[in-house]
Amino acid sequence: MRSAERVVGGVAPTGSARLRLRPVDASGVHILGGLLGDRQQVNRDVTLHRGAAELELAGTLENLRLAAAGARTGHRGRFVFKDSDVYKWLEALAWEIGRQPSPELERLAEDTVALIVSAQDPDGYLNSWCQVVDPAWRWTDLEQGHELYCAGHLIQAAVALERATGDPTLLDVARRFADLVDEVFRGGDQSGTDGHPEIEVALVELYRATGEPRYLELADTLTSRRGHGQFAGGRFDLRYYQDVEPVRAMHTIYGHAVRALYLAAGVTDLYAETGDDALLEAMLHQWDDLASTKTYLTGGVGSRHSDESIGDPHELPPDRAYCETCAAIASIMWSWRLLLVTGESRFADLIERTLYNGFLSGLSLDGRSFFYVNPLQSRGGHRRQSWDPVACCPPNIMRLLASLHQYLVTTSDAGLQLHQYAPTIIRAANPAGEPIELRVDTEYPWRGHVEIEVIAGGSVPWTLALRIPDWAREATVDGDAVPAGGYAELRREWTAGDRVALELDVSPRLTVPNPRVDAVRGCLAIERGPIVYCIEQEDLEEGVELADVRLDTALPLEDGGPVAALGGVPAVAARGILPDLDGWERREYLDARELPAAGRNGATRIVAVPYFTWANRGKGAMRVWIPDVGGGRE
Amino acid sequence: MRSAERVVGGVAPTGSARLRLRPVDASGVHILGGLLGDRQQVNRDVTLHRGAAELELAGTLENLRLAAAGARTGHRGRFVFKDSDVYKWLEALAWEIGRQPSPELERLAEDTVALIVSAQDPDGYLNSWCQVVDPAWRWTDLEQGHELYCAGHLIQAAVALERATGDPTLLDVARRFADLVDEVFRGGDQSGTDGHPEIEVALVELYRATGEPRYLELADTLTSRRGHGQFAGGRFDLRYYQDVEPVRAMHTIYGHAVRALYLAAGVTDLYAETGDDALLEAMLHQWDDLASTKTYLTGGVGSRHSDESIGDPHELPPDRAYCETCAAIASIMWSWRLLLVTGESRFADLIERTLYNGFLSGLSLDGRSFFYVNPLQSRGGHRRQSWDPVACCPPNIMRLLASLHQYLVTTSDAGLQLHQYAPTIIRAANPAGEPIELRVDTEYPWRGHVEIEVIAGGSVPWTLALRIPDWAREATVDGDAVPAGGYAELRREWTAGDRVALELDVSPRLTVPNPRVDAVRGCLAIERGPIVYCIEQEDLEEGVELADVRLDTALPLEDGGPVAALGGVPAVAARGILPDLDGWERREYLDARELPAAGRNGATRIVAVPYFTWANRGKGAMRVWIPDVGGGRE
Repeated sequence: MRSAERVVGGVAPTGSARLRLRPVDASGVHILGGLLGDRQQVNRDVTLHRGAAELELAGTLENLRLAAAGARTGHRGRFVFKDSDVYKWLEALAWEIGRQPSPELERLAEDTVALIVSAQDPDGYLNSWCQVVDPAWRWTDLEQGHELYCAGHLIQAAVALERATGDPTLLDVARRFADLVDEVFRGGDQSGTDGHPEIEVALVELYRATGEPRYLELADTLTSRRGHGQFAGGRFDLRYYQDVEPVRAMHTIYGHAVRALYLAAGVTDLYAETGDDALLEAMLHQWDDLASTKTYLTGGVGSRHSDESIGDPHELPPDRAYCETCAAIASIMWSWRLLLVTGESRFADLIERTLYNGFLSGLSLDGRSFFYVNPLQSRGGHRRQSWDPVACCPPNIMRLLASLHQYLVTTSDAGLQLHQYAPTIIRAANPAGEPIELRVDTEYPWRGHVEIEVIAGGSVPWTLALRIPDWAREATVDGDAVPAGGYAELRREWTAGDRVALELDVSPRLTVPNPRVDAVRGCLAIERGPIVYCIEQEDLEEGVELADVRLDTALPLEDGGPVAALGGVPAVAARGILPDLDGWERREYLDARELPAAGRNGATRIVAVPYFTWANRGKGAMRVWIPDVGGGRE
Repeated sequence: MRSAERVVGGVAPTGSARLRLRPVDASGVHILGGLLGDRQQVNRDVTLHRGAAELELAGTLENLRLAAAGARTGHRGRFVFKDSDVYKWLEALAWEIGRQPSPELERLAEDTVALIVSAQDPDGYLNSWCQVVDPAWRWTDLEQGHELYCAGHLIQAAVALERATGDPTLLDVARRFADLVDEVFRGGDQSGTDGHPEIEVALVELYRATGEPRYLELADTLTSRRGHGQFAGGRFDLRYYQDVEPVRAMHTIYGHAVRALYLAAGVTDLYAETGDDALLEAMLHQWDDLASTKTYLTGGVGSRHSDESIGDPHELPPDRAYCETCAAIASIMWSWRLLLVTGESRFADLIERTLYNGFLSGLSLDGRSFFYVNPLQSRGGHRRQSWDPVACCPPNIMRLLASLHQYLVTTSDAGLQLHQYAPTIIRAANPAGEPIELRVDTEYPWRGHVEIEVIAGGSVPWTLALRIPDWAREATVDGDAVPAGGYAELRREWTAGDRVALELDVSPRLTVPNPRVDAVRGCLAIERGPIVYCIEQEDLEEGVELADVRLDTALPLEDGGPVAALGGVPAVAARGILPDLDGWERREYLDARELPAAGRNGATRIVAVPYFTWANRGKGAMRVWIPDVGGGRE
């Protein structure tokens, strides 16, 4: 395979799409280091290779070999959706190869594509579970079968490979499968849709990659079929599958988090290509509902282990948070699409929050192990796994990391927008179509100074828009104060050597939860720039138990210096107070009149570390929300 | 069937059992009315008949008919354990018939016994799922099969019928099945035990009912086999099945709540009959762990919907509480056995808390619908069901209600102990074996005055012990102050006409949670005597949302008069404060520096009602733990 000079990204809207902003070509953005660059490098050097080994060990690749060989026994694992692990990992390989050539990764991708080609049935069908375990099962279990879900991930991998390498081999496979799905689901006797959304977002992209309108129509058909009770009487209630009401009438978000968010990403893309306003209206309502009542401070989504579901409004327990890593990824996918459609910074704000917290926590610092569930509190015992029988998250992490640079920058008729800050080289075009080049120099998110240098600006004026994060209480552009939220817009004729200095106050701060979030009443969180912090048992003084530490808000938070064991990330220092718990021994409840007089056992040192680095030094207790010393009766 | 004059209760220890206290004959205690009497009457008049109808509607009885007919198709429902619903209902019929004859209920019991007799296989086996769906399945799925679990409930029903009616027909069935189990599991090739404990407690009782030591030995064998990883690699982790460590070494309680508690009840009975001290030591440690860190204010157990499990210590979320009604029942069963063994009032205290709150909430006031899950907070939408595909709770409620009078009184070498107060007639024997009779007159739990009149006391002195509940801040016996917790002991030669007046302060009070219970930090609960109160949306002033109500602790709680719509139960009145939520619109988190100045929108009326009566007037929001106006930053 060759690495193409031009690498279209994962979202490549057509020229007629309804968008305020457009992605820049993925080959035009290079992250040069820093936190995000480091994560991309670890993914390239370690995680993608772990993926190859684990997919082999789990039998996931072997399942496709069995299908290719026409075997009827030996399928490994009891899950019907394992092929999708291969596809997501392959998509990650594609973006990584497109980012920077790698003979080894290219060989892995080529071998895997050849395997998939050989596994496809003559009529285009492809699903190793069905092919090996029971060919008669095909299309018989739309509720749990995940056949279209797997097809969706196959399509996304195929589109990525074609865009990143120019090789259309897998795209041909994907088209043949999509054609079969179209034939069966629009032309044939299948009148339902898949229990797990995912093919929708993939089909819109297949339409974009091929220009074939049938794929867009199929995406619309499958989307419109949901919400009519197809899954009534199934294993879960209808909310789980977003099958209660048609998506155009669905103005709140609920059910299985990853399903809801993949669906929303697809619906937003569908709006962009069809202009169906009811879709956008529903998406904006759903996003509002999500962001203002159902999202954790980390950007995580999914309040319940039961059914891996989004909870009631403001139901955000920190300890029992599900916050599946896949849901964080799907949330970023969705917000990115709404950002393109609307141009509103709030979507980039949520992407940032999710990226640095609820998403990055999914991968260990060494790139070798994974969290599936990302709670905001642990009483101990949480440890990332090397893999899981349900391995949806690891390859999903890999594909987002490999395509991270695609989420930083957009262009519009007005100019260029910087949504996320990292040390980068950016090559794009100005509104006149002339090539432009910028260099961003920063130690963000650890420091708030961002320096943008124009290498080439073209010959016409255009607007450089800089997102001012919603958390930034103090921000300046070239010394002038700018308000938090929205974009600082600088319109001029840019010439080589022009510089812009953005300054964001990333000093540590305290965050208060909405009074309706019952589960963290009387608690505060520490944040620093876009980074949510946590306290780990590991960092407490000898004999102090995390469960008993209160935050003393009388003293200011201070920078606590780099934490060597966590790659030098900066700590935040604070003072803790230990309550006097006399009278509470073996008592879960006390008559208020018997409550011991409030006492303090004294002060203790608090060292908070970035949430995404938790559980890298053991499996002790952790909490993001820290009881305020004045926050409860004790 | 005849109603025997003597009705031994559900726990009938042998003469050599290690006990401090002994149950009195079930026919010796009659509840004459009041709250508990009303619940028994509704069970008799309504609920038991609903059970008959629903068991028919659900096909549960039909499954046994199919087994009896040798059918191999038509088994209803996808669950393997449905026979147990019939057995628990039959046990309820037995106790109810024993309590008070009823031709209609007796006919139902007789017909059901005849059906079960006809369904039993020639070798003693009995499980309609296996018999109808797949005879080869027998004993092949100990992890999920529930065969011994169902056998346990069959045995309990059989013992109850024999004791309540004298009819040994079902006991013969149970013995034949138990003999088969003994043969297969001790003499045959089955070396494991059941994934769901229950047969242990039943086998000890079968031993007591028959005198056959093999049943006790089998109970010991099955108990001792658990805890060695038999279920490794199964559907759930080992904690779920209490299969991590042998029960004698298991000093904390965890896993599936009902499994853990049924097992504990059986293990406690096993100790009582064998004197194996390691069993008692483990039970006391487990109970301490449960009562001091894993029990809800309502007595409910089970913090997680996931795996229906007990959570970590102090993990007690009110909204996502599972608190299965069956777990409350199992907790009462266990505490009752520990009360008999130790004579310590703390076990009766927890029985009382569980009985009046987490258990009674499981049944609607009209006796026609059931809660399976009993949360302490609802954001709306909870409604009791008429039945459920997994119908374990309804017949379990029925059997406890029908045997409620068995949990009030014990005797010992010293005299008689009153553990729970209700208007009752009690006939027992004094330490000399002479018949004695007491009359208890009270409106407890609504009023704290309890008047005990001796009708007959015999000719020797003995001690009347009155439990002083742990919640009773002020208590007097005949005007003399007595401390809360433990028993007030009155030793004398009792003669007809003697009276004792117990006075308990049941004025409403505020309760504070342990500071380690993160989920209700900054909240308070209202209790009144043994009754936990809650606020329902229903009772708030127009336009006030329950989510926003804070409790103003500056004003005292007051009695709020009877609530007509809830059968006249007394309300508690308090003042609420509504916080000023300006600045929080569509914001889930705020920078502490942006926090609006604390404001109050004014006062509002709070009417609290007994928790067990919630959701009888609709399905609006409810909460037990109410934010304290000083309990959080707002």
